[in-house]
Amino acid sequence: MNTDPKRVLVLGGGFAGVYTARYLEKLLWAEQASITLINRENYWVYQPMLPEVISGSIGLTNVVSPIRRLCSRTNLIMREVENIDLKTQVVTISPGFRPRQLLLEYDHLVIALGNITNFHGMPGMIENAMPFRTLADAMALRNHLIQVLEEADVEENPELRRQLLTFVVGGGGFSGVEVIAELNDFLHLVKRNYLHLRNEPHRCVIVQAGDRVLPEMPEALAIFAQRILRKRGVEIILNDRLKAATSEKAILQSGTEILCKTLISTVPSALPQVIQKLDCPKERGKLLVNTSLELKDYEGTVWALGDCASIKTVAGTKVPPTAQHAIREATTAAINIAAAVRGGERVEFGFEGLGTLGSLGHGAAVAQICGVKVSGLLAWFLWRSVYLMKMPGLNRKVRIATDWLLRLLFPPELAQTKVAGESGIRNQHFEPGDIIFQQGDLGDSVYVIEDGECEVVCERKGEQELLATLGHGEYFGEMALLSDKTRNATIRACSAVNVSIISKADFNKLRRSVPAFAEVFAELAKRRADAGSSQSSRPYLRA
Amino acid sequence: MNTDPKRVLVLGGGFAGVYTARYLEKLLWAEQASITLINRENYWVYQPMLPEVISGSIGLTNVVSPIRRLCSRTNLIMREVENIDLKTQVVTISPGFRPRQLLLEYDHLVIALGNITNFHGMPGMIENAMPFRTLADAMALRNHLIQVLEEADVEENPELRRQLLTFVVGGGGFSGVEVIAELNDFLHLVKRNYLHLRNEPHRCVIVQAGDRVLPEMPEALAIFAQRILRKRGVEIILNDRLKAATSEKAILQSGTEILCKTLISTVPSALPQVIQKLDCPKERGKLLVNTSLELKDYEGTVWALGDCASIKTVAGTKVPPTAQHAIREATTAAINIAAAVRGGERVEFGFEGLGTLGSLGHGAAVAQICGVKVSGLLAWFLWRSVYLMKMPGLNRKVRIATDWLLRLLFPPELAQTKVAGESGIRNQHFEPGDIIFQQGDLGDSVYVIEDGECEVVCERKGEQELLATLGHGEYFGEMALLSDKTRNATIRACSAVNVSIISKADFNKLRRSVPAFAEVFAELAKRRADAGSSQSSRPYLRA
Repeated sequence: MNTDPKRVLVLGGGFAGVYTARYLEKLLWAEQASITLINRENYWVYQPMLPEVISGSIGLTNVVSPIRRLCSRTNLIMREVENIDLKTQVVTISPGFRPRQLLLEYDHLVIALGNITNFHGMPGMIENAMPFRTLADAMALRNHLIQVLEEADVEENPELRRQLLTFVVGGGGFSGVEVIAELNDFLHLVKRNYLHLRNEPHRCVIVQAGDRVLPEMPEALAIFAQRILRKRGVEIILNDRLKAATSEKAILQSGTEILCKTLISTVPSALPQVIQKLDCPKERGKLLVNTSLELKDYEGTVWALGDCASIKTVAGTKVPPTAQHAIREATTAAINIAAAVRGGERVEFGFEGLGTLGSLGHGAAVAQICGVKVSGLLAWFLWRSVYLMKMPGLNRKVRIATDWLLRLLFPPELAQTKVAGESGIRNQHFEPGDIIFQQGDLGDSVYVIEDGECEVVCERKGEQELLATLGHGEYFGEMALLSDKTRNATIRACSAVNVSIISKADFNKLRRSVPAFAEVFAELAKRRADAGSSQSSRPYLRA
Repeated sequence: MNTDPKRVLVLGGGFAGVYTARYLEKLLWAEQASITLINRENYWVYQPMLPEVISGSIGLTNVVSPIRRLCSRTNLIMREVENIDLKTQVVTISPGFRPRQLLLEYDHLVIALGNITNFHGMPGMIENAMPFRTLADAMALRNHLIQVLEEADVEENPELRRQLLTFVVGGGGFSGVEVIAELNDFLHLVKRNYLHLRNEPHRCVIVQAGDRVLPEMPEALAIFAQRILRKRGVEIILNDRLKAATSEKAILQSGTEILCKTLISTVPSALPQVIQKLDCPKERGKLLVNTSLELKDYEGTVWALGDCASIKTVAGTKVPPTAQHAIREATTAAINIAAAVRGGERVEFGFEGLGTLGSLGHGAAVAQICGVKVSGLLAWFLWRSVYLMKMPGLNRKVRIATDWLLRLLFPPELAQTKVAGESGIRNQHFEPGDIIFQQGDLGDSVYVIEDGECEVVCERKGEQELLATLGHGEYFGEMALLSDKTRNATIRACSAVNVSIISKADFNKLRRSVPAFAEVFAELAKRRADAGSSQSSRPYLRA
């Protein structure tokens, strides 16, 4: 029996994917199977501890673990999965430095691609709401928080300062609650380092669609959690949800508007594109599998697990998308793949869960373990012990324990670790009545109206004069860039407006390199200037 | 005597700026002076340890210290300095969230803006060489190194793998030597985690203009350093310097070309724009000060120190741009400012330096302290002790010592901490003969020729056919984007070529929102397609 090793391909590097590869390394020899894992990042994120990155309780890189060290015999490819062809058994991988796609054939496939945040149908959310799933999200949030505090410290207008110090989290599940709790802790700790913010209040708001937070837990514990959060100053809005957002505010279903510069959303979830376009039996978009976690119609070849699969236990219970379940699913899948490769007994998935744990910030948590409810400091120690124990590898365990110890001795980190400035062509959403820019502002970009209408208003000697109304496909803001002056009109949205924003740097590069582009704006500027001078020196549209 | 506190403004948050603010907080009461410090970041970088971030010997945020904690009574403004008006005593600060500049008046000004990396006159360096000055630079380099290793692990072409595993550092001063040493250590340690790189050699090259590295040190120590580096596998190229770069290679003055995907440059330095445009006495661009560190013609009002000032000691020695000197300059400036504010004795700068220290990677260093030369392991311990001692604050000392300890027990970090993908309109430089893109590549961007000429070559049945030559202002690459196919011609540079590159995402956004832009490319595509079909179905320029 001298055959080539079977090619096992694992898609996704979350709990489900990484643990499947780890178990497979134990169950199969190198001569029996080659294991390849595809993931966008070269690390695995320990999701339960991700919120601790916000307050710096855990160092940035200690909340993740390099997949190469977790699965030392697995061939890791740090790319994106672009397509899965179940018929020909080929997976297409995105290009790297070289602009060529990679095609990978498999004998056995594990689909564990998780889910993504999807703001479809919620105007302005893509542009303004920050997701919270990956290490990159957590770092971006931390940097944004520090930016906001730095700006608030300089800001002299009390209303704007209040807006800068308002933080909104959408979604009251585990993730949302842990994020708002950590965020609130962090603000309390670092505000004392800002000379003008020491005695300034901040506002942390969590918005939950149901009538209580933590729907995953028994009601008594959720009520306890709400009491603790409120005692620590967090506002809880129930029976409402995020509907839209602009750069200045969060807008709720009920019509409530919250002025803020920070909006984090842990909901809603959707399936990755590559799963959506997969033509196979599904349930509510998720891949339908049997109790051996095999994809329907592809038994023995394809397994699906984790958040992208619709799984039922042998007892018929619907399996929730949690880490403890994903780890058990990985065991089941790995045993069944090993059986398919080299024969042996197959198993079915029967894990019914051990309990649930949720942190409420420093020194408080809620837990239900094997039916017993625990809350407060004890639950918090339990939370820390369980998750530290579950973190694979001595290296990370020691590093996290050290971080926790140092965190008790010293204040949290305060350095902003931004890598590069924003660039490229961005989109932005405005609600009716919003000011897009103000007369007297510095001109830092050009705007193109995608949909909606704006009015151009000029303020002179305290009086407002309506100069024009602009609609789809029209531009504004170019005059200040062409002449390097400040805006000399205010632009206000008359309806809901979506714009493309071209930054000054990109605008100038395009003007230089694409003559047609330069001409459009030169001509427009000339027309607007002419219109201005012909109408009693009215500076028409010199925005 | 009931007067308003004097407004002391410190520009720059390096050693010179931060230490001046720290001393001023000790020398002056809040009623005597308000201290404001302007810096681009909210942290101060401990430059001597920055290279240790590469190998992860020190955690990302432990090599920096929040300025708010170092100078607790100083008002920090995290913005850029845009202009200094010495006549009216007003400093202009860049806008934040709100697009308005900030104007700050001062009674006493400290200019300590350091210097910047400047690649002027070196084609392709801005686009391809990575500087190494800030925490952001260090993080970007670390992420790039991991990306390169991940790509090399997947790459099957041995030449391309060799290119991915070649690392070039320009500049053989302290900074360059420490960077190449750390980089080399890091590669040796992490390569074992890459299944296909374990037995693959890598190449670390350092290029120095003089006839030895470390010109700051005595020759004997520099020779020792060279021996150690070479023993550890580093190639040292002397009497040569970087001249140009493309995305594929580094080009030296001598004509030597080194194929590589990683090019780090620690030279050359230039003064920040805001200093360059300052109209006052200078020496080789640096601000000319007297031995009390006062700016000529503005004695008693403006002080300049650190790397942007040209300083001589009372003994007439030219002061080198090192941390130990900057700290002593800060003391002198602070005492003299305090004297200007509340009277008292003034001092002159007379510090002649204590010695020099340079790390050569794990377990080796060179040092000259008070005339005594030390090298090897002893010097390395000395290096670590001196710099740990000099790090201000117990918090950082403990954290760095912990990092060093954990580093002895566990392998270095391997997680890539990139925050966002590249976007916006980039520039790129190509040398004659370079391939800009290859027939069959995926089309991921459109190119506009800024200067130079390119030829369009189509390969069919193994034969190359020249289709056209393109020059200044012409576009290519749009066909693959418009039709979502791969490139069906190769573009090669005939001369040195500079292009603007518009990414697919931005190209599509611009096409949608600026009709004139869309028309240019639609017409061009049509013309090229027509030309193709009229010439015996030759797919003219369908790149």
